[in-house]
Amino acid sequence: MNVTVHGRTQPFRTVSFDAATNSVRLIEQRLLPHEFKIIGTKNFRETARAITDMVVRGAGAIGATAAYGLAQGARAFRGRDLKQFSAHTETVYQTLARARPTAVDPVNALNDVRRAMARGETVAEQQSLALAAAEEFANEDAHHCAEIGRHGAKLIRNGMKILTHCNAGWLAFVDVGSATAPLYAAQAQGKKFHVFCDETRPRSQGATLTAWELAQQKISHQIIADNAAGHLMQRGEIDLVIVGSDRTLGRTGEVANKIGTYTKAVLAARHHIPFYVAIPLSTIDWNLKSGFDIPIEERHESEVLGAWGAVNFKSQISNLKSGRRAYVRVANPTSGARNPGFDVTPAELITGIITPAGIFKPQELWQNRDRLRSSQKN
Amino acid sequence: MNVTVHGRTQPFRTVSFDAATNSVRLIEQRLLPHEFKIIGTKNFRETARAITDMVVRGAGAIGATAAYGLAQGARAFRGRDLKQFSAHTETVYQTLARARPTAVDPVNALNDVRRAMARGETVAEQQSLALAAAEEFANEDAHHCAEIGRHGAKLIRNGMKILTHCNAGWLAFVDVGSATAPLYAAQAQGKKFHVFCDETRPRSQGATLTAWELAQQKISHQIIADNAAGHLMQRGEIDLVIVGSDRTLGRTGEVANKIGTYTKAVLAARHHIPFYVAIPLSTIDWNLKSGFDIPIEERHESEVLGAWGAVNFKSQISNLKSGRRAYVRVANPTSGARNPGFDVTPAELITGIITPAGIFKPQELWQNRDRLRSSQKN
Repeated sequence: MNVTVHGRTQPFRTVSFDAATNSVRLIEQRLLPHEFKIIGTKNFRETARAITDMVVRGAGAIGATAAYGLAQGARAFRGRDLKQFSAHTETVYQTLARARPTAVDPVNALNDVRRAMARGETVAEQQSLALAAAEEFANEDAHHCAEIGRHGAKLIRNGMKILTHCNAGWLAFVDVGSATAPLYAAQAQGKKFHVFCDETRPRSQGATLTAWELAQQKISHQIIADNAAGHLMQRGEIDLVIVGSDRTLGRTGEVANKIGTYTKAVLAARHHIPFYVAIPLSTIDWNLKSGFDIPIEERHESEVLGAWGAVNFKSQISNLKSGRRAYVRVANPTSGARNPGFDVTPAELITGIITPAGIFKPQELWQNRDRLRSSQKN
Repeated sequence: MNVTVHGRTQPFRTVSFDAATNSVRLIEQRLLPHEFKIIGTKNFRETARAITDMVVRGAGAIGATAAYGLAQGARAFRGRDLKQFSAHTETVYQTLARARPTAVDPVNALNDVRRAMARGETVAEQQSLALAAAEEFANEDAHHCAEIGRHGAKLIRNGMKILTHCNAGWLAFVDVGSATAPLYAAQAQGKKFHVFCDETRPRSQGATLTAWELAQQKISHQIIADNAAGHLMQRGEIDLVIVGSDRTLGRTGEVANKIGTYTKAVLAARHHIPFYVAIPLSTIDWNLKSGFDIPIEERHESEVLGAWGAVNFKSQISNLKSGRRAYVRVANPTSGARNPGFDVTPAELITGIITPAGIFKPQELWQNRDRLRSSQKN
């Protein structure tokens, strides 16, 4: 997608690879939305650290970062001894796989790259195949998101007001995003619409990342408190809801996503507003039989008890540079918090699931499992 | 209610009067929850400014402040000339009435005091009657809240988990509060329960004021993001919801309250969780015929785009002193916001309305209007 820095608009991918310097190029997402900075990791250990430290986050984006990291590590090997090379790449693989131990995308990506490398007979061949496989993984991620956009854009009509929650945008993938992909595709088709970004407390990804993306793409939008969506729906000011998903149950059509998604689905159902979930196929879980079996991560209470932002922000509006980022304690100093990170939305509240393979009713995923599973593996 | 400062627990009212120094004593609410400070206004102009600048906020609290302010202004008059005195008290009245021009409570309170003063035949008598009337207004506010507590406490059983939204606590009244009154009464009866305080973005009154109150009263509680209530209800972790109201329509039973209240009511109805609204009778509007006629204040977008809190808060946990309060810009610097301050909850979602005169179904307010109106005037 496009980013404007110091008045110059340039296309960027969230994750890319610079073969000349053998480095993975990443948007330093922890500085957004107050500063836009591209960093290049010098070696696979730095790449793994960037995943661990959440310089880069989001399923597709950390998958591609891990894939590039394995290629980067493999390409740094000097020598022709295949055994030594194998031992070295195993270290690289393990280091990257451990960077975010609960995420499945990096492991899937690493396995893709390792499988491709196995077809090479020399160190040089394997190094070259590793980079090609990583590039393919990244391109495929971008392509799948573009397909989500192509299908989802059909839902968007001129003049619509669309609600989003959290950030399932291009920053979470290699490009285009999942929940945002239909917006970008509809914009490319010349449609005019307005987006309400839920702030998405406690981590405020809607107010920070999604709003930043939409501003860069010059899509009309406003941020709202998570409390405001119900009122806007009641007054007829929201026509469509599109959110992402961290895990979608193929058997039941239930969707686990950022805390607050369920609430928006309940409100949308009450007001007969279509509620769509946009997902890459990799997030479909074909095994779990009930949403109640999805473990809900309890995150640190400091997220609820305060907020991160830029102090003296006024000076930054023109150049997107932050003076200083600070955490402020909002809540009563002697109180604690509960902080569930995700919630589960039942199928009955979901109008449709937008996938790269088309739009399905949540109950239809299971009957289409053969087709969806085969697309998953491509 | 009780407040513990430097390890000493003392009873405090939100608003009180010190006759010896002729000053209105107020909790400086803008410093809470990070600092507890009582201020005394020197004259009626300072009292009016305290209302305007939101040193004190909340229907009952600003009503009592205005009442005391009129007594304070009247008592500052030196001389025996009744005509001069009348002109002076008129200035005092107008100054206090204009302090928060849209609020009805200060005007009602000022009229109460002025009516009482008219019974006096000398300046000294009128001065004395003014203070007595102001004290009566404050005592009545505290008494009405205590009655809400007495009725509401019957809803609370041992082991319950109770959700609250925003702050309709003792800080908003002279004492005890409306939505919090049943909690304090149940605690006094020895009941054990746990309270979830909605953060209540964008102004975070739940995380700051309600949590501070409950901590002072040693009631078990946790703050949650506004997004989390739906998930907790889904997992059976909430048994009862109690909120306050800024305006309740006597004809329809609709309730206007802080933005996000409607969302909680929709969620509670879906999960068959009782949803109660606690109100002083002064908030009942007998005229409006539909909730859609209630003007919804659109507040400044900076509230949504950032947050106020204490920097370096760790040092404050022990002594409740803040180093420095700061506003941080959380959101993307180039994005704007929508910020409706209130929403309207329809009667069908409300289990009951807790008033000083008992608990009513929202549809029953109108049929009990004669009784409720006569209580309103007491």
